[in-house]
Amino acid sequence: MTAPAHPSSSPAPSQRPPLMALDEARARLLARAVPLADVESVSTFEADGRVLAQDIVSALQVPPQDNSAMDGYAVRCADVREPGVVLQVTQRIAAGSTGHALAPLSAARIFTGAPVPPGADAIVMQEDVELVNECEGGVRFKAVPAPGQWVRRAGEDVTRGAVILRQGERLNAASLGLAAGVGLGHVNVVVRPRVALFSTGDELVMPGEVAPADMPGGAIYNSNRFFLRVLLQRLGCEVSDLGIVPDRRDATVAALKTAADHHDLILTSGGVSVGEEDHVKPAVEQLGALDLWQIAMKPGKPFAHGMVRRDATVPGHAHFIGLPGNPVSSFVTFLLLVRPFLLKLQGARVLDVTPWTLPAHFNVTKADKRREFLRVRRNAAGGLELFGNQSSGVLTSVVWGDGLVDNPAGATIAHGDRVSYLPFSELLA
Amino acid sequence: MTAPAHPSSSPAPSQRPPLMALDEARARLLARAVPLADVESVSTFEADGRVLAQDIVSALQVPPQDNSAMDGYAVRCADVREPGVVLQVTQRIAAGSTGHALAPLSAARIFTGAPVPPGADAIVMQEDVELVNECEGGVRFKAVPAPGQWVRRAGEDVTRGAVILRQGERLNAASLGLAAGVGLGHVNVVVRPRVALFSTGDELVMPGEVAPADMPGGAIYNSNRFFLRVLLQRLGCEVSDLGIVPDRRDATVAALKTAADHHDLILTSGGVSVGEEDHVKPAVEQLGALDLWQIAMKPGKPFAHGMVRRDATVPGHAHFIGLPGNPVSSFVTFLLLVRPFLLKLQGARVLDVTPWTLPAHFNVTKADKRREFLRVRRNAAGGLELFGNQSSGVLTSVVWGDGLVDNPAGATIAHGDRVSYLPFSELLA
Repeated sequence: MTAPAHPSSSPAPSQRPPLMALDEARARLLARAVPLADVESVSTFEADGRVLAQDIVSALQVPPQDNSAMDGYAVRCADVREPGVVLQVTQRIAAGSTGHALAPLSAARIFTGAPVPPGADAIVMQEDVELVNECEGGVRFKAVPAPGQWVRRAGEDVTRGAVILRQGERLNAASLGLAAGVGLGHVNVVVRPRVALFSTGDELVMPGEVAPADMPGGAIYNSNRFFLRVLLQRLGCEVSDLGIVPDRRDATVAALKTAADHHDLILTSGGVSVGEEDHVKPAVEQLGALDLWQIAMKPGKPFAHGMVRRDATVPGHAHFIGLPGNPVSSFVTFLLLVRPFLLKLQGARVLDVTPWTLPAHFNVTKADKRREFLRVRRNAAGGLELFGNQSSGVLTSVVWGDGLVDNPAGATIAHGDRVSYLPFSELLA
Repeated sequence: MTAPAHPSSSPAPSQRPPLMALDEARARLLARAVPLADVESVSTFEADGRVLAQDIVSALQVPPQDNSAMDGYAVRCADVREPGVVLQVTQRIAAGSTGHALAPLSAARIFTGAPVPPGADAIVMQEDVELVNECEGGVRFKAVPAPGQWVRRAGEDVTRGAVILRQGERLNAASLGLAAGVGLGHVNVVVRPRVALFSTGDELVMPGEVAPADMPGGAIYNSNRFFLRVLLQRLGCEVSDLGIVPDRRDATVAALKTAADHHDLILTSGGVSVGEEDHVKPAVEQLGALDLWQIAMKPGKPFAHGMVRRDATVPGHAHFIGLPGNPVSSFVTFLLLVRPFLLKLQGARVLDVTPWTLPAHFNVTKADKRREFLRVRRNAAGGLELFGNQSSGVLTSVVWGDGLVDNPAGATIAHGDRVSYLPFSELLA
C-alpha cells in the first residue's frame, strides 16, 4: 500500500510558523472574547459562581442600629463609676425588639444583637454582674465599663450608600451573604455562557457502553469530555453535551451548524493538530474561520480558535475552541486559556490566579525549549514534589497533583529553588 | 417594668464551665459523625464533589497499546542508522485504526495516538523528514532515531489491576476523567448528606420580602442562611430550606420533628448561646439531647451539637448543629467544624486543609485569650494583609479576605512573622 506522506492540508515542514508564546496566544484569544451583553436577575440563593452585572449599592446600614455584642446589661457609664454599684433592671430587650430610653440609675437586660436603648453607652457582659434582690431585679456590677464597650456600631459592616460588591465580581458564599444582608433577594448577573462540548474520533468509545474486556483494538475510552464538563460547570457555564460526533465531514458540519445557533462556544478536544487526519478543521473553515496555533508550552502546543457562523436569523457567531487531544494537554490548556476566556465572556474582573512562590523539592535537570507546566504536589514540609511521569498522556499526574509549576522555557530547577506555583484549588474555583 | 435578670435556663455566672479548646470540640463532634452507610451509583458525568464508596481498580491498561506521541513516521531504528536514509511509506495508521507489521526497510505514516505497528520501535516526527519521490511515497530521515523515541508505552498512565482511585476520595474534574478513561460510566459514591437549614428569630426578614426603606426598627435581613446554603452545596449536601421558623416553642418543635425524619443534619445559626432567649434549645432537648459548648475561639464561641429523635418508624436520629448567630462566627465555625463533620459523614479520607506558612504584613499587638481566626488577604508581595475590622458581625471581612490566619491563644503577631494561613479556596472546595 502506498500513501501520501503528508496529508494535503498540512504545510511542508519548512513553511511551518515558529511556536507562539503562551502570553501571546492568551492575549489574542482574550482580544476575541467580547463579554456577553445579556443580564438576568437570579435569586440570591442560586447565584453562587455567577458574575455581577452591576455594582451593588447598599440602601441601608448594617447593622441598622447600635446593638449589643453580648448577652448582658446596657448601662450609662456615668452610673457605674466604681465596682460594686447596684442598678435596678427596668427593661429587657431581646433581638428583634426595640427598647425604650434608659432612665438614669437603671440598667436594661439585653441580648446579643438587640438594639442598645437610647441613653445607654456600654454593655456589661452577664459574666461581670451578680444578681441581687432577685425578686426586685437588681444587679451588682463587678467591673467598671468603658464607654462603647461591647456595642456594635450601626453601619460598622456596611454604611448606607456604600458599594458593597462591584460589577465583574464572581459571587461566592460570603458575598451572597453580604448581598442578602442588605436586603437583596435577587441579584443581576451576566447570563451563563452556553457551551457545546463534543468529541470526534472513531477510536473513542463512551465509558459504560463497551466493557473493558470487549474493547476492540485501537479503541480508547473518551475521558476528556468528562473533566471538561466539570471544569465548564465550575466556571458557571451551561453545558450541552453533543456526544461523540462520527469522523465524517458531513456529520461534523451538521453538529457545528446546529450547535452554533444556540451556543456561545463550541469546545472540542483533539483533531486540531497541524498534521492530524480530521474533519473538524475543514468543517469549521467551511462554516466560518479557524486559526491554528502552535503554542510554546508543554503540555499543550496545538490550540485552535475560530468562529462558526450562525443561521442568518440568529445574530452573532459562536466561538470555536479546539483543545489538544492528550488529556493533560487538554486539561492544562483549558485552565490557562479557556478559563480566562470564559471569565471574560462573563465580564469577570479577575481572570487570573496569582502564582505562589514555593520551594521545589525536586530537580529538573534537562531544560525544555518550551515553557513547562509541571504537575506537582505540596508536601508536609511546605515544598513541592514532582510527579514522576510528566507525559501529556498521563492524566494520573493531574489526579495526584494539587497544582502546576510554571517553569520558564530553557530553565532547569534545582532542589530548593523557589518556583512559581498555581494551585488547582484556585484554578478550579 | 421589672424583668428577671437572667433567663431561668441560664446557669449563674459562677457555674459556667471553662471554655473548650477548638481541637477538643472538633474531636468530640467528629466522634459523633458516623459515616452514612448508603451507597449509590452515579453517572461519571454527575459525580463532581462526591465521595467514592469503594476503590476503583482498572480492568485495563491506559493507554491500551504502545502509541505515537507525535504525527510522523514509525520506523525500525535498525533501518535508520545514519541521516539521509530514505524509506518507502507502506502504510498509514490513524488514531483508532490498527496497522500491520512493519516490513523491514519501510516506514509507516502515523498520527498522534495511533498504535505503533509491530516491528517498529521508534517514531520520527514529521518535522525531521523530507518527502522524496512524492508520487511513490518515500521519505528521507534527517535525524537518527533513538529506540523508544516518541512512543507512549502501553500502561504508562494506568496498569491493569491498579487501584486508580481510593475509597474516601472526593471526586473532581481530573479524577472523573481518569475513571472515564478506564471505562467507568458510573461510579459508586456515598449518598449525599441531607441537610435541613433554618433560621429562627422574629427580628429576621427575608431579603426581597420587605424593602430596605420599609424595614421596621430592630429588624435585620436574614443573611446567614444564604452563605450556609452555598457552603453546604459545595460539600455535596442536598439542602432543604425550612425558612424562618417563628420564635415559638411549638413551631420550633414542629419544624425539628418534621426535619428529623428526612434529614441527616438539621443546621441552624443563632439562638444557642447560653444566655439567649430562644426556643431552639428547649425544643431540641424535648426531642432528643443537646450539648452547648463554649469554644475558645474567635470568632466563634457558642456551638451546639445534639440529636433529634425520629418517628418510631424511621431508624436512627438526625444530628442537630447550632452555629453562632454572628455572620462571621457562623461562617468560620462552619468551615472549621461543620465542614469536617460533613466530610466524615460522607466517608471522606481527607477532612482537613493543610495550613500554609506565609509572612504577616500586619501587626497584632494585643493578644487574645482565645485562638483567633483573622480574616486576611494575600498581597502582591506574597504576604498577608489584615482586614481592619475583625468584629464577628462584619461579614465584609470575609468577602474582602481570601483566607484565615490561625493565631494561637495569647500570641501577638509582628510584621514579618510567619503565620499559619488557611485559604478559602481550599476550605470552600
